[in-house]
Amino acid sequence: MSITRHEPGPILSLAVEHGDTVYLAGIVAKNLKNDVKGQTEEVLTEIDRLLAKAGSSKSKLLSATIWVTDIRSRAPMNEIWTKWVDPKNRPVRACVEAKLADPACLVEIMVVAAKG
Amino acid sequence: MSITRHEPGPILSLAVEHGDTVYLAGIVAKNLKNDVKGQTEEVLTEIDRLLAKAGSSKSKLLSATIWVTDIRSRAPMNEIWTKWVDPKNRPVRACVEAKLADPACLVEIMVVAAKG
Amino acid sequence: MSITRHEPGPILSLAVEHGDTVYLAGIVAKNLKNDVKGQTEEVLTEIDRLLAKAGSSKSKLLSATIWVTDIRSRAPMNEIWTKWVDPKNRPVRACVEAKLADPACLVEIMVVAAKG
Repeated sequence: MSITRHEPGPILSLAVEHGDTVYLAGIVAKNLKNDVKGQTEEVLTEIDRLLAKAGSSKSKLLSATIWVTDIRSRAPMNEIWTKWVDPKNRPVRACVEAKLADPACLVEIMVVAAKG
Repeated sequence: MSITRHEPGPILSLAVEHGDTVYLAGIVAKNLKNDVKGQTEEVLTEIDRLLAKAGSSKSKLLSATIWVTDIRSRAPMNEIWTKWVDPKNRPVRACVEAKLADPACLVEIMVVAAKG
Repeated sequence: MSITRHEPGPILSLAVEHGDTVYLAGIVAKNLKNDVKGQTEEVLTEIDRLLAKAGSSKSKLLSATIWVTDIRSRAPMNEIWTKWVDPKNRPVRACVEAKLADPACLVEIMVVAAKG
């Protein structure tokens, strides 16, 4: 099975295709002045962009791992998530609390999707 | 490769099949009055149920990620895990500490398995 | 698709092959007197060894999840990571803070790779 890597940086690639599976890096917002809802919106927009680049889309999501820096942010994050996710194609998911690289980052989302 | 989703809710599906791979959501107990051993038993019973529904079983486990809210719970959780896991077919695993959605949840387990 | 398990212990296998995909357990250092850079070097050497055993290599890395016990350790861990990772074949990655099983463990790394 072939491997295709997208948008490599010094540490990681933002997306990797392997056969029919697409792995995305853990994505955080760049505009860190936003609250967790604004950051979640930015993260999900970036995930849409990367999935499209790798030949996938949110309707092909398989799995999502979400880290929030304060577990009480789960409810507002979920408001944005629920509006975004394809209601006929929801992935499996886990959401737990963890400190992230930048203290101003409030949410990080890492997904696996199918191609095609 | 086809995608089959099981038991979708407003936020996530509890299991997703993609080709020969099955992804399960992070599973927590419902009976939150139990200690970490009781919660682990309930979680593993639910994982057995979902794997069967998706055409898999614990003998086909590939990978497990376990979050405990207190890392000292790892030992009692492992007692239950070790009794449950197929001794001829143990998956890879990571177990780390994290706060979970409900403060009464003591353990969450997310697995990937093979079909067939 | 066939499943091949490597180096099973009482709780987990250190590597599992499934078709063209290789899953490695969350790896920690054994020499816990080392700082996070020394521990990261030991972890990555062990990952090299396990990938080779499972018919893969770091040039086939797809995804990495990294837990550090202090998020400020991300910078020194990244120094070692960046020297180690194949500059033409970087995986996707997430790195978050979490307490690990042994308080002296400073970093744990879990990867998924392709075979071939």
